[in-house]
Amino acid sequence: MGMRVLSTRRKKAGTAPGTPVHVGRRKYDATRITVFEYDAAVCEERELASPRDCAALDRARAITWINVEGVHDVSTVSTICEAFGVHSLVQEDIVNTDQRPKVEEYDGYLFGVLKMARRPEHQEEIEIEQVSLLLLDGLVISFQERGGDIFEPVRNRLRTGKGSVRRRGPDYLAYCLMDAIVDHYYILLEQIEERIGPLEQQAIADPQPEIARSIQSLKRELLQLRRSLWPMREMVYRLSREEVPLIGEGSRVFLRDLYDHVIHIIEILETFQELVSSTMDIYLSSISNRMNNIMKVLTIIATIFIPLTFVAGVYGMNFVYMPELEWRWAYPATLGVMAGIAGVMLRFFRRKGWV
Amino acid sequence: MGMRVLSTRRKKAGTAPGTPVHVGRRKYDATRITVFEYDAAVCEERELASPRDCAALDRARAITWINVEGVHDVSTVSTICEAFGVHSLVQEDIVNTDQRPKVEEYDGYLFGVLKMARRPEHQEEIEIEQVSLLLLDGLVISFQERGGDIFEPVRNRLRTGKGSVRRRGPDYLAYCLMDAIVDHYYILLEQIEERIGPLEQQAIADPQPEIARSIQSLKRELLQLRRSLWPMREMVYRLSREEVPLIGEGSRVFLRDLYDHVIHIIEILETFQELVSSTMDIYLSSISNRMNNIMKVLTIIATIFIPLTFVAGVYGMNFVYMPELEWRWAYPATLGVMAGIAGVMLRFFRRKGWV
Amino acid sequence: MGMRVLSTRRKKAGTAPGTPVHVGRRKYDATRITVFEYDAAVCEERELASPRDCAALDRARAITWINVEGVHDVSTVSTICEAFGVHSLVQEDIVNTDQRPKVEEYDGYLFGVLKMARRPEHQEEIEIEQVSLLLLDGLVISFQERGGDIFEPVRNRLRTGKGSVRRRGPDYLAYCLMDAIVDHYYILLEQIEERIGPLEQQAIADPQPEIARSIQSLKRELLQLRRSLWPMREMVYRLSREEVPLIGEGSRVFLRDLYDHVIHIIEILETFQELVSSTMDIYLSSISNRMNNIMKVLTIIATIFIPLTFVAGVYGMNFVYMPELEWRWAYPATLGVMAGIAGVMLRFFRRKGWV
Amino acid sequence: MGMRVLSTRRKKAGTAPGTPVHVGRRKYDATRITVFEYDAAVCEERELASPRDCAALDRARAITWINVEGVHDVSTVSTICEAFGVHSLVQEDIVNTDQRPKVEEYDGYLFGVLKMARRPEHQEEIEIEQVSLLLLDGLVISFQERGGDIFEPVRNRLRTGKGSVRRRGPDYLAYCLMDAIVDHYYILLEQIEERIGPLEQQAIADPQPEIARSIQSLKRELLQLRRSLWPMREMVYRLSREEVPLIGEGSRVFLRDLYDHVIHIIEILETFQELVSSTMDIYLSSISNRMNNIMKVLTIIATIFIPLTFVAGVYGMNFVYMPELEWRWAYPATLGVMAGIAGVMLRFFRRKGWV
Amino acid sequence: MGMRVLSTRRKKAGTAPGTPVHVGRRKYDATRITVFEYDAAVCEERELASPRDCAALDRARAITWINVEGVHDVSTVSTICEAFGVHSLVQEDIVNTDQRPKVEEYDGYLFGVLKMARRPEHQEEIEIEQVSLLLLDGLVISFQERGGDIFEPVRNRLRTGKGSVRRRGPDYLAYCLMDAIVDHYYILLEQIEERIGPLEQQAIADPQPEIARSIQSLKRELLQLRRSLWPMREMVYRLSREEVPLIGEGSRVFLRDLYDHVIHIIEILETFQELVSSTMDIYLSSISNRMNNIMKVLTIIATIFIPLTFVAGVYGMNFVYMPELEWRWAYPATLGVMAGIAGVMLRFFRRKGWV
Repeated sequence: MGMRVLSTRRKKAGTAPGTPVHVGRRKYDATRITVFEYDAAVCEERELASPRDCAALDRARAITWINVEGVHDVSTVSTICEAFGVHSLVQEDIVNTDQRPKVEEYDGYLFGVLKMARRPEHQEEIEIEQVSLLLLDGLVISFQERGGDIFEPVRNRLRTGKGSVRRRGPDYLAYCLMDAIVDHYYILLEQIEERIGPLEQQAIADPQPEIARSIQSLKRELLQLRRSLWPMREMVYRLSREEVPLIGEGSRVFLRDLYDHVIHIIEILETFQELVSSTMDIYLSSISNRMNNIMKVLTIIATIFIPLTFVAGVYGMNFVYMPELEWRWAYPATLGVMAGIAGVMLRFFRRKGWV
Repeated sequence: MGMRVLSTRRKKAGTAPGTPVHVGRRKYDATRITVFEYDAAVCEERELASPRDCAALDRARAITWINVEGVHDVSTVSTICEAFGVHSLVQEDIVNTDQRPKVEEYDGYLFGVLKMARRPEHQEEIEIEQVSLLLLDGLVISFQERGGDIFEPVRNRLRTGKGSVRRRGPDYLAYCLMDAIVDHYYILLEQIEERIGPLEQQAIADPQPEIARSIQSLKRELLQLRRSLWPMREMVYRLSREEVPLIGEGSRVFLRDLYDHVIHIIEILETFQELVSSTMDIYLSSISNRMNNIMKVLTIIATIFIPLTFVAGVYGMNFVYMPELEWRWAYPATLGVMAGIAGVMLRFFRRKGWV
Repeated sequence: MGMRVLSTRRKKAGTAPGTPVHVGRRKYDATRITVFEYDAAVCEERELASPRDCAALDRARAITWINVEGVHDVSTVSTICEAFGVHSLVQEDIVNTDQRPKVEEYDGYLFGVLKMARRPEHQEEIEIEQVSLLLLDGLVISFQERGGDIFEPVRNRLRTGKGSVRRRGPDYLAYCLMDAIVDHYYILLEQIEERIGPLEQQAIADPQPEIARSIQSLKRELLQLRRSLWPMREMVYRLSREEVPLIGEGSRVFLRDLYDHVIHIIEILETFQELVSSTMDIYLSSISNRMNNIMKVLTIIATIFIPLTFVAGVYGMNFVYMPELEWRWAYPATLGVMAGIAGVMLRFFRRKGWV
Repeated sequence: MGMRVLSTRRKKAGTAPGTPVHVGRRKYDATRITVFEYDAAVCEERELASPRDCAALDRARAITWINVEGVHDVSTVSTICEAFGVHSLVQEDIVNTDQRPKVEEYDGYLFGVLKMARRPEHQEEIEIEQVSLLLLDGLVISFQERGGDIFEPVRNRLRTGKGSVRRRGPDYLAYCLMDAIVDHYYILLEQIEERIGPLEQQAIADPQPEIARSIQSLKRELLQLRRSLWPMREMVYRLSREEVPLIGEGSRVFLRDLYDHVIHIIEILETFQELVSSTMDIYLSSISNRMNNIMKVLTIIATIFIPLTFVAGVYGMNFVYMPELEWRWAYPATLGVMAGIAGVMLRFFRRKGWV
Repeated sequence: MGMRVLSTRRKKAGTAPGTPVHVGRRKYDATRITVFEYDAAVCEERELASPRDCAALDRARAITWINVEGVHDVSTVSTICEAFGVHSLVQEDIVNTDQRPKVEEYDGYLFGVLKMARRPEHQEEIEIEQVSLLLLDGLVISFQERGGDIFEPVRNRLRTGKGSVRRRGPDYLAYCLMDAIVDHYYILLEQIEERIGPLEQQAIADPQPEIARSIQSLKRELLQLRRSLWPMREMVYRLSREEVPLIGEGSRVFLRDLYDHVIHIIEILETFQELVSSTMDIYLSSISNRMNNIMKVLTIIATIFIPLTFVAGVYGMNFVYMPELEWRWAYPATLGVMAGIAGVMLRFFRRKGWV
């Protein structure tokens, strides 16, 4: 229940717009810059020691991909961005990891912000990380908040030359990275589905207060995911339909496919939201049912014995003139009357369907 | 309650886009390929032994329809698709049966994905299957996850030449197949309507916890159906209104009719959703009412007898100096007083409308 | 609660599209065909013995109106339609009375489907009937599921020449028929309003389970009406705004007025929906209140007498050494203490506001 | 709770469209026609004895404003309208006071319908009245259902020449009348806000059933106002944006301002709707809380005394061989045990937080 | 709970439109006018003694910024506005602080209304203040309801020349002011998030009636903020996309960024609204759970002891012929039977999961 909606205070009040200030919980220790230079024939991979080396890249191959892990070091981001003439507002957006997903066209390059969701091992809460992509002529730069294996399959395809990624342009590489991010949501969806089922079961069978808590935390998670995905939908749509420079016709087909995936995930999220909220209803109705059953037991016991106890009380009175007390069969007769009352009551309850 | 929203993990992370990988629960054993070749005069029907035979079809008749049952065999789908130059992304979409319904125009052919819903015999849950349609020049290829009798009426019309299907083009055949799929939803709607009525009755007459469970499973089913139909609406709309090549003006009239049917089904689904969710309200109010009645019984019995028992208790006290005890008519008088108290109470309850 | 949402199975699976098959509960016995032929000066009215006579109409007057009551006889409809060259899909739509309201332009004629709602005498449920209109050059054909007095006022205006209907074209006649259908909804709205008021009253004053049932049936009715009207809104809008052939500029003013009426009715329906659903809330809160009151009574009686009974019980114990028992004023003192306890309790309840 | 949504049966079934028939509760006795003729220099005001005098107006001044109070006299409205060549459908709309707000362009004049809301003195319910405006060349005609002081400020500005109304055209006068109507909603909003606050307070402090009733009647009122305002929003929008003849560019600025006011009021209404509906939630939770407290009291008293009474009962048994009865300290010891039981119970309740 | 939705009666009925009348609670004592005149090189700052000095400004520097704190003095606003030829409707909008955020283009200047939200120190409620901006050629005029430090960071950037504000045009200055206002919402969002978390915790752990009150007041606050932001979204959108004169292409990039921030805040507000309303659900379910537990305790105690007390009552009867009373082991046997009954009951409760 502790997942925060606001990741942090956006920026210090009064900072001039366009000044890159890192905003976000410090998530990674060192910044790591890896470079892939490839064409259909060759793929070279290396790690840069310093962001200043970016400016010195010879870019001998057709396509260069620079991946930066860790954006908390503002100067690193600035150095890289300035090496390729990227606007200061873009630098600010990369460093400030509380952006809304979007795509922006600048002169000579495209800038995109995406949200990656993952649930770290041994952790209950989802983490939303920002991935920024820059698509320039023959160059893709990606910024992650911290490293991870999310792009590893893409790297493997580059290394082995499987698929068509090495034969296609940088727009296709950018698509592959976005596809890897979107695909990762499916894994979270499955984890969530695996939690909803048992919750429903438990809401009916054993309505404990923890269920309300679990439902609330699921709701939060779904809201969080939906808030990350909703603007990505718009973003991918724009890339796939409009005449955006740097995105070729061939890649647009793939982006349309990606758009379908985003829509698909959003629809599943909405289905989950409806299921979760109707689980709450089920939970509430289960509590009511339970109360009903408790009340039934109490009522049956009480209404059977209260009259009987009254009868016993009557014959426990100490009046001097109570002729029944001395009758020979009064005691068994009284017991018989009591049994009769109990019987009538039970029949009444059976007719009501309570027993 | 066990119907899953996600049919399965979409694809293995890191597969290159455009690589056909079968995703879906294996639903059918063998792949079966049937071919209809027909024109207004003649209709030939046969079964292909191997997908490679597709390339060798002479297509002597005006229109050829290839129907493939079972898409789990990736190579079969690839072989057929490649025989007609179909894009690898399309092949992936056919094989991956977790697609969103859509229609896509490619150079020289149209590709459509639909969702067919059916409830297999002796099974409680609805199954959603994917049907992919390819409309080429003079050729329709349909891919089903597994065989079934859903296209049987179309086949019969082809065999007997009833209706105008043999006199019209492949676009009309594609329409007939889509119409068969959409029509099937009406049967499910009827089954659902037959479940809602008794549920309402029972929610009022006998509010048991199973009702909550049934409501939840109905909700799930309606969400599932709606999620299948909603994108089909958009898809049929596009086909019926826009200038899509390969769809003739004559077929567009029928597609508009189909569009009306899809809208009609969606509206009925929405009505059902409202009815189901107000059945939940009724169920909850019935539980409350029931509790009310239980409480009334308890309250009536308890409030009548508790004072009487108190009176009996008083005269059961063992004080030495209790003058009433020795009075001659004390006992009947006490009984009379008790009857009086009970009478007053009963009148009070009657005035409250509880008895 | 028995009103069905689906009027019936739409059509037998596998029927070729465009084959007219009557779908609908058989509602009327005989088919009746009446013809009005009129111009500004004269109005002739007669009944046709057979649908074949339609082809033989000389249409001497400017405008001819053919009204068909009963569409269960498929051949009748086909005969009439074919006399004027109407498309087979249209014939199917006329006969299949489970259509969604719509308007369709065909070459040389306009086809419209409307839904008429009425509550037959001595019946609780609303009946939705389909009325199909064909507007040709100088000719209006209307198909009703069964006869009724809904078009009677239009007929009277034709007979007497009141209003401008005889001086205007067939488009104005079609408008008059649609206006008669829409106007009829107001009567149902009034009946519904007359049911909502008392329901609210009763939900507060006397929350019985029947109220939930009445609310549910009102909801169903409102959903039903809304589902009939919503597409009619779109349909009338199209007729009133677009350049539809056969609809003159003069009639468009009236159609805009009709459009306002449809919108007005829909808004009232939505208001009713909100009122009905908040009546449910009131009902639920009344039940809770009632339970509260029952609990109060029980609690007051029980908490006053339980301690008193305990005191009586104590002095009913048979210990040999209980000095109080022999005190002279013990009995009245005990009664006094009991009265005191009761008094304290009552003051407590008064402070809580329960008495 | 008696405010009706439908003001009355719209018109008698079968009346020819365009026949003015007064529909509405008869609200005013006599019809009163006042005329203002003014230009920048002079303003003459007088009352017409008969509607026929309208045709005889010489309209010597630049602008004429005819205000008609009372539209129940159909012939009055017809006479005035026909004097200026107004369409019969417009006449019908003026007389039938159950119109939806709208604006319609006719040849040479504009026709607008507005809804005025006011709460008459000493009355609990809001009354919605229809005001119809006709804007012709140099002439404004306004029809009110009954007189009132709502246009008095406009009249005063005309009389005194304050503001620019005398220097501007008839479109500005029409704007002023509409502005006066819209402004009046603010007063109702304030009255409603003054009712919501205390209701919230009371829902928490003292949840009585009257609250549900008040909430329901507030909901009705808000629905009513919203239904009046929503189409006025559209209407004012059209006037302020589109190139409507008779509305000058100068007046359009003011209409845009008026549009902002209408939107503002609608937003406040929506906020109120949300507040009212969450007041219902608060009310329901207060009832639950209250029940909780009642149950607590009952449970505490019952669970403390029931075991004690049982102990007393045990030693009230009349067995011959009950050794404890003869023990010297049995009685005080029993009392001590009872006190102990009560103490344990109380500690238990304290731990639960009930005491 | 006392925050008002309507800040005050909008204007006195009957005031001519375009007459500036201050509407709003008097919030500030004196009006203060500060002027910044700057270009890339120099920045001069001074305070004007009287609004009449505005007309006398020589505007020697490229850009002039006049900031007015306090708009309750109508004549001040009028004097300033008229010095620069601003329309009387604009003057009215500045003075009347109950405007909806909007932007309006006039000949030669742009006029914008924004809402600033802040929570004053030691105050629980949010205050919404109106800030009006006028953007003329080389001149920005801002009107605040009362002073505050919200523009202080912008002033500091002007004074020190940090950032690019001194090198850019007046449109950029206007953007900076708007950005400062929007940024301030983040602080409120954080405060609200810090209140939601504990509320959820408390709703589960300790459902007290105050929670309903806190939830209601949070809802009110969120509605208030949303109502302020929603029209600002539209306003910023228009400025950033359309070809608005006076806004240069360079500033449009920044406005697009601002637009993203506004959308971001709105999305967070909506997430908060959903969380708050599901906190209400949790609270209600906690109350139900609590009631359940109370009932369980009562039921367990009552159903165990009521039968036992009955048995004791039976042997407390004074019949002469009750053979058991004289049996030697009757008393311990009875106690044993009682223990047995209690044991059976407890097992029953354990099986039900109540103990």
